[in-house]
Amino acid sequence: MALAKEKIYEPLNEDSAVVLVKDLGLFEKEILLECEEIGDGNLNLVFRIADRLNNKSVIIKQALPYAKVVGESWPLTLQRAQIEADALKIYHQHTPNLVPKVHYTNNDLAVTIMEDLSHLKITRSGLIEGESYPLLSGHIGEFLAKSLFYTSDYYLTPPAKKALAKKFYNPELCKITEDLVFTDPFFNSETNEFEEELTDDVQKLWNDLVLKLEAAKLKKSFLTEGEALIHGDLHTGSIFSSNEETKVIDPEFAFFGPIGFDIGQFFANLLFQIISDTGKEKIILDHISNTWNSFQTIYSDLWLSESHEKYTRVEGYLDYVLKKCLQDAIGFAGCELIRRTIGLAHVQDLDGIPSFDKRLQAKRNSLSLGREMIVHRADFQEISGFIDYLRTFQF
Amino acid sequence: MALAKEKIYEPLNEDSAVVLVKDLGLFEKEILLECEEIGDGNLNLVFRIADRLNNKSVIIKQALPYAKVVGESWPLTLQRAQIEADALKIYHQHTPNLVPKVHYTNNDLAVTIMEDLSHLKITRSGLIEGESYPLLSGHIGEFLAKSLFYTSDYYLTPPAKKALAKKFYNPELCKITEDLVFTDPFFNSETNEFEEELTDDVQKLWNDLVLKLEAAKLKKSFLTEGEALIHGDLHTGSIFSSNEETKVIDPEFAFFGPIGFDIGQFFANLLFQIISDTGKEKIILDHISNTWNSFQTIYSDLWLSESHEKYTRVEGYLDYVLKKCLQDAIGFAGCELIRRTIGLAHVQDLDGIPSFDKRLQAKRNSLSLGREMIVHRADFQEISGFIDYLRTFQF
Repeated sequence: MALAKEKIYEPLNEDSAVVLVKDLGLFEKEILLECEEIGDGNLNLVFRIADRLNNKSVIIKQALPYAKVVGESWPLTLQRAQIEADALKIYHQHTPNLVPKVHYTNNDLAVTIMEDLSHLKITRSGLIEGESYPLLSGHIGEFLAKSLFYTSDYYLTPPAKKALAKKFYNPELCKITEDLVFTDPFFNSETNEFEEELTDDVQKLWNDLVLKLEAAKLKKSFLTEGEALIHGDLHTGSIFSSNEETKVIDPEFAFFGPIGFDIGQFFANLLFQIISDTGKEKIILDHISNTWNSFQTIYSDLWLSESHEKYTRVEGYLDYVLKKCLQDAIGFAGCELIRRTIGLAHVQDLDGIPSFDKRLQAKRNSLSLGREMIVHRADFQEISGFIDYLRTFQF
Repeated sequence: MALAKEKIYEPLNEDSAVVLVKDLGLFEKEILLECEEIGDGNLNLVFRIADRLNNKSVIIKQALPYAKVVGESWPLTLQRAQIEADALKIYHQHTPNLVPKVHYTNNDLAVTIMEDLSHLKITRSGLIEGESYPLLSGHIGEFLAKSLFYTSDYYLTPPAKKALAKKFYNPELCKITEDLVFTDPFFNSETNEFEEELTDDVQKLWNDLVLKLEAAKLKKSFLTEGEALIHGDLHTGSIFSSNEETKVIDPEFAFFGPIGFDIGQFFANLLFQIISDTGKEKIILDHISNTWNSFQTIYSDLWLSESHEKYTRVEGYLDYVLKKCLQDAIGFAGCELIRRTIGLAHVQDLDGIPSFDKRLQAKRNSLSLGREMIVHRADFQEISGFIDYLRTFQF
């Protein structure tokens, strides 16, 4: 086990990746393995290693010591590989059907070897191509309910929760979100990227003090509220789907934050589908509604049956927690709509709209919907009111 | 330096305490030292060591591995000595005039050697004896503003704040507060202690679902909101005073929590003075008002002059942060009023009232004022409204 015992970090290549999985006994020594680097290469290397003869394969994910998206000048510690592996293990305890199985982790190499999900498709791509994924929202609602309940002070004792929160100390990846989601898009920042034709709209947004005050409050919540272990990057590119299965991947941004954040990011990334194609309104609104209802039902059941906290029996407390979560989610979703439109990291849902005019209009809609959701989030008492609002929004 | 180099914890006694300070060179080898254990003995040993000849003295504080208040059956790690010393050092950076100077710390022995403040009096005792401490509220307002600003995300970068929060991981002492302040007094718990004559009042409180829902929200805030480094136990027994000086001691409960907590605990422990003697209303209400105004003025100045956070320039954000802080403080103060009346740890302000009938009435007033402050905290927009409310309260 030469590589697996190696304490010095070095990026893997297709040859050394094969050596590693054979050293670890994940495949027979003599078997022929195919290896391919399939990552998008922003923060990590991703290798798919397949034994075609026995129809067996695994994924090796290795963290890079920098973020490629902004060049090698943005260094990142490798600790996030451990965060990701630790989060996947926790998710696996509570929702084994909704995350890849982890075969092996090595913190020195910043490597996680896990189940190959190549038979599934990245949900964002599938939705863009017209898939509807009927089980997606039920599955994600279950994932959210269980991951956000079982890591909270309601299920864990407060000391156990604090010990877990300390393990998920993740300042660098939090900072990416603090800057790129909550700050830069709302100010004239170097990282922003948008079409020249949007300049007036963006200037208006930067001068919108009502919006900025509400964005400040949402950023404060992200900075200070450790409600439970959140995934931290739960967009449709972090979910694999088919018509039967759903798998959440890539929790390297995981930390203890406000539980509405994961829900909001998922909502926003579904909304891009309506913004880019109003014909999908029904299917997407059903997904949003169903995500929330599935989350709420399962979370409420766990609250009643598995909480050690005496106050969870007090009438009105669950409603308070759920309402705060919904309103936070709508606000966080608004931030995601704006930052994916004019910030550093865009989405294919919008950037892939072929017609320039339609693309511009979709981006303007994304900005104005994001703005309204941030500013008016406290008006929504239930998911149905939010869905009604979305139905009347002029996309 | 035999003792100072010793890695094995053992409680000091008056002899070994003297050996320690001489080993450390804090006093001349040959000098005659007087040593006295002066602690209240709940959680710590406290020795005062004096060189009468040269008029020099120090305090040694050593953590005990258990909480004596509930017998040796409540074990506590010794890590809190380090938390306390680390917090004192941070406070010393920003308000050197308002905390004792730390001469030496040893985490293995759980020992902190610090400035002797015997020329001052514990503020609770002084107030009970009729002292007015004219500088107290201005000093505490300054202490609160600086300690709560300089450890927040507004002054520290978010990664630096997270690193500091990790250092102040303090689950055991937090749990004492979570249980004894936020939970036990609101339920029929074994730890509660109150006069039989209060049984009806207490039963009413336990059945008050409006109150319990609001107490649940305040507990949630304490469990999840890491706004800044809070002292965590800032009652009038944790402050030394004279007419010229104020010194904050005992930050062993320090952790990253909601900033209104320290302010609320101080408010409540001042309020016990009115509750036990309405003749002190003016002097105490002036202290409460002045604490807030001093806090608000200094915090606002720092916010404008020393924040790196872009959003601090957005109109309304400072008001939002201050209003949340005030309302939280009033709610936390309400919890403190209730728990010091019927919970495990009482205060001399109430328990020392000689007349049984007056004592009972004072305790009833404490319960009902606490209840109102918790339930109606969101009605207060400014400190003046809260002071007006207190003026009309029937003590």
